[in-house]
Formats: sequence, C-alpha cells, structure tokens
Amino acid sequence: MSQHIVVIGGVALGPKAACRFKRLEPGSTVTMIDQSSLISYGGCGIPYYVSGDVSDAKELCTTSFHMVRDPKFFKEVKGIDVQILTKATKIDRENKQVEVENATTGEKASLSYDKLVIATGASPRKLGLPGEDLKGISYVANPDDALRIREGISKGEVGNAVIVGAGFIGLEMAEAFADMWGVETTVVEITDQIMPRLVSPALATMGQKHMEENGVTFHFGEVVEGFEGEDGKVTKVITNKRTLDADAVIIAAGVVPNSKIAEEAGLNCHQLGGVFVDEFMRTNDPDIYCGGDCAIVKNLITDQPAFLPLGSMANRQGRVIGNNLAGGETRFDGVVGSFVVKLFETSMAGTGLSLDSAKHAGFDAISVLLIQLDRAHFYPTKELMTLEMTVDKKTRRVLGVQGFGSSGDAMVGRINAVAALLKSEPTIDDFSNMELAYSPPFAAAMDILNTLANLADNALRGINRGVGPDGFQELWDKRETSECFFLDCREHSDAEKPMERNPEHWHNVPQGEIYNRLNEIPTDKPVVLVCNTGARSYEAQIMLDEKGYENVINVHGGMAAIKKYGVNV
Amino acid sequence: MSQHIVVIGGVALGPKAACRFKRLEPGSTVTMIDQSSLISYGGCGIPYYVSGDVSDAKELCTTSFHMVRDPKFFKEVKGIDVQILTKATKIDRENKQVEVENATTGEKASLSYDKLVIATGASPRKLGLPGEDLKGISYVANPDDALRIREGISKGEVGNAVIVGAGFIGLEMAEAFADMWGVETTVVEITDQIMPRLVSPALATMGQKHMEENGVTFHFGEVVEGFEGEDGKVTKVITNKRTLDADAVIIAAGVVPNSKIAEEAGLNCHQLGGVFVDEFMRTNDPDIYCGGDCAIVKNLITDQPAFLPLGSMANRQGRVIGNNLAGGETRFDGVVGSFVVKLFETSMAGTGLSLDSAKHAGFDAISVLLIQLDRAHFYPTKELMTLEMTVDKKTRRVLGVQGFGSSGDAMVGRINAVAALLKSEPTIDDFSNMELAYSPPFAAAMDILNTLANLADNALRGINRGVGPDGFQELWDKRETSECFFLDCREHSDAEKPMERNPEHWHNVPQGEIYNRLNEIPTDKPVVLVCNTGARSYEAQIMLDEKGYENVINVHGGMAAIKKYGVNV
Repeated sequence: MSQHIVVIGGVALGPKAACRFKRLEPGSTVTMIDQSSLISYGGCGIPYYVSGDVSDAKELCTTSFHMVRDPKFFKEVKGIDVQILTKATKIDRENKQVEVENATTGEKASLSYDKLVIATGASPRKLGLPGEDLKGISYVANPDDALRIREGISKGEVGNAVIVGAGFIGLEMAEAFADMWGVETTVVEITDQIMPRLVSPALATMGQKHMEENGVTFHFGEVVEGFEGEDGKVTKVITNKRTLDADAVIIAAGVVPNSKIAEEAGLNCHQLGGVFVDEFMRTNDPDIYCGGDCAIVKNLITDQPAFLPLGSMANRQGRVIGNNLAGGETRFDGVVGSFVVKLFETSMAGTGLSLDSAKHAGFDAISVLLIQLDRAHFYPTKELMTLEMTVDKKTRRVLGVQGFGSSGDAMVGRINAVAALLKSEPTIDDFSNMELAYSPPFAAAMDILNTLANLADNALRGINRGVGPDGFQELWDKRETSECFFLDCREHSDAEKPMERNPEHWHNVPQGEIYNRLNEIPTDKPVVLVCNTGARSYEAQIMLDEKGYENVINVHGGMAAIKKYGVNV
Repeated sequence: MSQHIVVIGGVALGPKAACRFKRLEPGSTVTMIDQSSLISYGGCGIPYYVSGDVSDAKELCTTSFHMVRDPKFFKEVKGIDVQILTKATKIDRENKQVEVENATTGEKASLSYDKLVIATGASPRKLGLPGEDLKGISYVANPDDALRIREGISKGEVGNAVIVGAGFIGLEMAEAFADMWGVETTVVEITDQIMPRLVSPALATMGQKHMEENGVTFHFGEVVEGFEGEDGKVTKVITNKRTLDADAVIIAAGVVPNSKIAEEAGLNCHQLGGVFVDEFMRTNDPDIYCGGDCAIVKNLITDQPAFLPLGSMANRQGRVIGNNLAGGETRFDGVVGSFVVKLFETSMAGTGLSLDSAKHAGFDAISVLLIQLDRAHFYPTKELMTLEMTVDKKTRRVLGVQGFGSSGDAMVGRINAVAALLKSEPTIDDFSNMELAYSPPFAAAMDILNTLANLADNALRGINRGVGPDGFQELWDKRETSECFFLDCREHSDAEKPMERNPEHWHNVPQGEIYNRLNEIPTDKPVVLVCNTGARSYEAQIMLDEKGYENVINVHGGMAAIKKYGVNV
C-alpha cells in the first residue's frame, strides 16, 4: 500500500526519517518542506567554520563525499520531493492536511498526508533585552549566521567578542574566537560555573582554567541587561556588574523547541515547549510523529521528561521514525544524556547525572573524583585524565560519569562505555570489572574506569574518606585560622617545593614511613592527606585509621587535581 | 579475626590481591612468594621497551610515580612480606601448608596459610624443535628477555629477525623490530592470517597490508621445523617451505598456564592446563583462590571455558580475590574477550566473537563490514574506521564487533562501548540507538557504531545484500570468465580512474541517474555495485530491486575497503 508522507523541517531528523522511509518503501512518496532555503546542514559544525577548522561553509551542507545536499540531490539520489522556502502554518489533523505558505510569494497551499513528521527543530533563545537587534549580535543557528560571523572576524572587524552563556555553544564559540583569531573573548554566564549542572564545580573549574590559559575571560554570576551601539552596530554589552566593549556578540543562552504549530494542532506538548512522544516517537495523534530538537523524550535515569537537542539524537530518532512510518515497531526508549565538548587542547564529556543533577532528581548520592593516567604509565603518550562518578548511596547504583582531560578520544571512549550500561541500572561492581580492551598504548592494566568504580566502592565502604580539589580549596583557604594538619605523604623530593613555599602549613611524612613517624602526626586535629593523585594518601589514611586517628581527610585527585583546579599551594 | 594469607606468584594478580586484602584487613598478614627475583612488573610493556618507546626497563617495574616495586616497597608501603627466589613445590591442602624451596640455596621450608592464592601465571609455549635452545632465540616473558633482546639490536647484531606466530605478541614484536630499528623482519604463521579467529580474514588482511607497507614480511600457512646456528647462536629458521636467515628469533606461539602445582594438589583443572574457578575466583577448595594467567574463567557469550591471559584481567580479578579473602562476596562473572593491538600507525581491536568463532561456537551467524569516518565529515582530523559486526541471524543478538583503523583511541572507545553491553545479550536495535557522545570533533551525528548496527539490520532484512572486500576479491579474480557486471555507481569523476585501468570490466552509472539509464544495466547477469564506502551502492541496490533486478551484490566498504584490503582494481 503506497503512502504519502509529509515532513515539516528539512535539517536533521526530517531528511533522515524521509530517506529511511523511502528506502523501506520505494513505491511511496515523501514531500519534505522547509521554511528556509538551506536544508540538511550540519549546524553543529558552525563553531568549527567560524574558527577556520572547516575552511568552506559548503562542507556543512555536503555528504561525506562532497555531494551537496540540496533539493536536486534529494530528488535524484533519495527520491524525495523537497519544497524550500515553504512554511507550514497549520496542521489540520481532521482532514490530514498541512497548510503551507511560500515565504517569497506568500502563496498558500495545502498538502495532504497519510502520515506526518514534525521536525521543526529548535530556535536560539532570545533575551528580549534593549539593543538585542543591533548588527554584530548573532545567534548560532544556521550557516548564514556562520558566514556573517566569520566574515566579520576575517575582515579584522572584531577586536572584542562577548559570548553570553557558558554552555556547549557558548564555549565552542569562545574557543573559535580566541584560538584561531586572537580576538579578546569574554564569556558572561548567569550561574557560577561553565556547563552548570552538567558537570561538577570541580570539573567546571578545571575546564575554565584551561580556557583562561588560552585567553578567554569569564564573568560568572553576572546578568546581561542590554546592548549599546553606534550606527546600528553593537559596541558594548551592559551587565549588572560592568560594561564590556564588544564588536561581536554571540547569544548562546540555549534553544527553544519550535513546537507552536504542534501545540496549536492540539498535540500534547510540554509547558516549556516541545512535543511529547512515546517510545515509537509518535505523538498523541497516531498518524503524526515527532523527533529531534522539537521533541520531549524520557530521561532513562530519572524517568522525567528530557529535552536533549543534539544532531545525533535527531539522526537516530529519524531512523526510528522512518522504520515506523513503514509499519515497523522500532523503539526509542529515551536518553541518558551523553555529551562532549572540545575546549582548546582539552575536552569535557559526560553521561548520566552529575552530583548536582542527581540531588535535584531526588537521589541520595555522592560523587568521587579520580585523576589517573589514561594508558600504561610507561607508555610515552600517556596523559592524566580526570573522571568523576556519581553513585546512589543506598543502592550503589551508578548515576553518571563526567570527565575532563587532554586526550579527547580516550575520554569519550570511556564515557560511551559508561553510557552503554547506564540504562540497565548498573552498580559500582559492574564498573569495577568492566572489560576494557587492554594494551599499554591504549589503557592501563587497571583502567581508569575500573579504578574510578573502586574509588566509589571504597568511599561507600568508608575506608577512603575525602574531598575533591574544591573541598581542599576550602580547607586551604582557612589554613591560618583552622587547626588542619596538612600532610604531604609523598617522598621528600616530591614534597619539597610546596614545603618551601608554605613551610608553616605543609608537613611531610612519606606514606611508607608513617608507622615509624607517628609521633610527628597530631591526633587531636584534622589531618588532610595529599599525594600525587590520591592513591598513596589513601594508603596513608588506612594506616592512620589502623592507628586510631579519627579525623583524616584524603584529597581525591591529590596535587594533580589541586594544580588543575588552580589552588595556590 | 586476623588471618594469614599466602600468595604464590608476585607479578600481576598476586600483588593486586595481596594489596587489596591488606587494605581491607590491615591487621592480617600476607606472605607473597615468587620463584624469580623480579616481581610486580609490566610484562605487557616488553615490546615497547624493545622498540625504544620505553627508554628504561626499570619503568616496567615502577609505579606511576617512579617508585620501584621491589620487596622493600611492598614491605614499607603495602605491609606485605615478599620472599623472592622462592619456588612453591607443593600445596598440602590437608595441613594448609605450601612447601617452598629457595632457588639459590635449595633450602626447603613450609608456609602455613589460612587462605591461599595461586597466581602462578603462564609461560611461553615452547615448540620442542631442534635448535630451539640456540642463543638468539627468545620468548617474551620477563624484563630479562627484554633487556637481552634490546641489547642485541642496539649493538647492531640483528640484521634479520624472524617472529614465530602472528598473535598479539608476535605482531607487537614485529613492529618493535621493524619500526624503530629497521631490522628485516619476517613473521611465520601456521594459519592463513594474522590474529586467527580473533578477527575476520578481511580485517586481518587490512592489518597485514599495513604492516607489509611498514617493512614486515609474512609467510602464512607455514610451519617452523627447526633452527640452525653457528657457534651456538641462531643463524637460520627452517620452515616446511623455506630457510630464513635469522640473527634473532622470537617465539610467540601462545602461553601455557602454570597450573601443575594446582593439578598435583587435586584442584580442578582444564585438560589443556589452567585452574577452574567459580564466580568468586575460588577453586574447588574453598580456602584456595586462583586468578590471572593460570585461571580458566567463563566466556559470557558462549558459556564455554575461557583462557584470556591479559594483565588487565589479572588486575581486576586480583581485586575480586582481595575482597573475598576479607570475607566479601564480590563476583567476577566472566569475560567477553576484548582486545586491542597497535600495528604501527593503525590498530586492531575487538570484543566478543568474530564470525569464525561464532560459527565455531554453534551460532547461525552473519557478519557485516562497514567503513565510515570516525567523526564529522567536515572536521579536519577525521579518519576512516573499519568495523565488522557479527550477529545471530535468528535472534538478532550481537555477538561481537572487531575493527581496524588509524585513530586508535577512537576505535577502542567504540569497542569498549560494545563490550559494556555484550554480556546482557543485546540485539542490533540496542546498537542502532546506542547513545554515543556527540560533537563534530569526536563523532559523526550518526556514529559509525549506530550505522554498523543499521547495516546489520538492513542485511538481515535482506535489503542490503552484499559481500566484504574478500568476497569482492573472489568476484573480481573471476572477472574474465564470470558474467558479473561491475557497476561503479559514484559520480563520473570518482569512477574515472578504475575505468581507465580496466575499461572492459568497469561500468559507471551514478546512483542518481540509475532510473534514467536502466537500459545500460543488464538484467541477466549478477550486478556488482561499488561506491566509495557502500552507502550509495546500497541506495542503488534498492533502486535496482525496485525495478525487478534479481541478482544485485553490494560491496560493503566500497572502494575504501577494496583499497585497504589490497585488491588491484
């Protein structure tokens, strides 16, 4: 039985659903409409075009083998009819028609469908502030924005750039400005860290420090109140704390699902926007599917509605919809929320819940932070990687892992391995024994992911009790007034430098000598143990516990974390 | 209750079990014995010391922070008594004693235990051939071997090296000889491919070609029959087909578990060696644990006994034993068989079963091969990755994934994500929707792992029917006599070169033009479709199917695979 499918939206999910369906039912017809003239582009590539990593904006609109994905391509290669510059104005569910309007001529028409796919995506959130329509203020939404921004920079018109928002796109754009073009780049963020709620304050600070070292300035806890300009072009950004010079402004304050047309058609939508779909990506109208940046799916860890606008989600969901349009019963159960973002020579990645989001979702959770080499310690390309694991205290369930490090692929690989297990409610033990492929050039014999789970196990057993670098900073900041005894338990040669800098605060007893030098370690004050990464200080903690010490704090991540976090010891 | 634990073997599992136990029960005592004077070394690092990647052999015996792991270290830092040069000669289970003998003095003694850990490891398999004891013939077992081999090379004494065996260690040693030292290196392998049964012939050939391009010579299906020498030093390797000059010979023909002492004590052992253990790593004597290279665990895919001698296994199992010695009930359920090996600028990795091993285990399976970019096609550091997935036809269960590629960490990351799911009997659909962290520098929007599962889905649906590069080679080899119609369905500019080389065999109709040029494509012979990677030719196959063509073969991996496999088209 031949069907006619209409797809509203031609960027990511729309084309994927259309092409998959067409391959399964070559005898059926598909009409895909888009209000713009640009379709099927890789919007996620925009920061890399702006930075110059991608030399030609056309590459964002081509296949892997350089074929331009335009209406002609879709017709000839995919057998799909595309109508560009065509805006859907109304969905008439009763008559199974979409009313459309030509964006150039204003001409109206209607398209009948057997089944409909809503793939309207999302739009950048506008701030609604005075001066927001000045020239030079951009949102990162489509290749036209990319062209305009890069043209401005490459002409030398941009000396100062201000980015509003320290989420993925804000940080990627900050790197693009600062790295390749040497533009003075400032990020203004309303919360007190980069990537709020996605990663812990400790990881966020490590990422922030690295970006600062590469020339990006951050202002946290600061609200943009408006923009000023000259001759219609932006020159200043006004915040609640200061005025910043700006020749270019990027507003990266999140995106809003384009679900108005669905809502007006009476489809179930989230109060903040976005269309609810079931596990088959179907709306509450069985003939209408929805996916990608305009859909609300399920978070498989919290069972709460999730909005995860990512090109990867759109592609996977698009295939599911394609299958189901053709009579399949393919499921998309939901998401665990994996992400990665490149920050100059480092990257930040994660999956599942951070400690903050776990608490927010009602879990009684803790997190542990580990720094370890990502491959055999004797292999020359080894790098330190930092991972943090959030676990539910009572059930030992692993809720999420996030990381920061310089070897991006290696870290993303670990995050993906965690994500693969997350929806099956794994416990710490599943990660202690996780089978990671081993060879010295690629992993340590006890992989960092195994050790991370072991650390969580030891924390829950109460035998490795400690704080991360942020907790250490608090203790260190109070060093003049508090009674803490800061004990460096590395060999003397390693401990020498901090002791020279702060002789009145640092003490040194190598872990192997602790039993013989107990008289040097006070029993009546908190002992804060530090080594290189937290492993030897954990051994020291066990020794002191054995000898009856009652208030011993191990610094997880040790000096390596302290340094990356930026505490001046 | 304080216990005394005896550990036989001090290389990987032994120290891990001992240290973990000691941290959980600091009041108990542990005696670890080893017949050699070298303990706790990273044997897996030997090829990298021979190659020069690791400059000092001491690094194989130190911690991440350069502390030498000798008996003094274990005593002071870990609280463990180590007796080196002490060989265990008998386990007296009735009296719970281990009889030992000093390797230097011959002095005998016995050690009482509450619980015992057998961590005797494995030894290189000896061939028992004439001349095998000549100088210059080495096994890769411990740092002494490493020192001797590297000394020979660095003195310029090695012009020709012969490696017996094309498994992990053989290939790693071949790279070490050829890459850093420019030694003429020949590998003799009894089967007809590298890494037999671990990877498919197609992947194996890709790896082999890459090693050949880097100067390694291979002789497959060849049996070494003996060695000849002068002045007690090896000069020739005699095979059933030829005589090879050799100044150095590495025998890398697998390892044999050192389980004789366990067998003599009446513990359950495999007929080919190795001690059977349960999911708590306990032997059939509840007071005796065993793990690492001398233990037999369970393959979680086949439910058959598995022997997987890897340092990573030893470390993970060691911790499990440490927990259980201290009264825990930590499980080690078994293995799925993950591996990775670096081959010059590429690597080969995998997990679970290859098609060959799946068939051997009784599955009715197929495999599909995919080549795709490992990150966004517009991102400059993108590389092609080849992955092969084996699936059970009836249940759609994924049995394994193997891969070959140049971006090692990125590939290993995918393999680890697959491994994480394998023991839960995942189906193709679990991988179609697998949530891999997405950002253009790290992944494509539809990640290669998602596409691989989609390819398997399409193969099982019968809509993408094809062969890998090995199957194409067979068809191409018969091109003069068979009736195959070789159709390059790329754009003309891409198809031009092969058409110039073989004008009588190649035909070109770009996929988008197929419906208009059907008269150029015969209906009465097999049509073999080729494009860049197999994606467009799949679209072409659907078009030809739609038009009633009955014998269409799609070449999975396309020209990219054909090239890596080395077919001369």
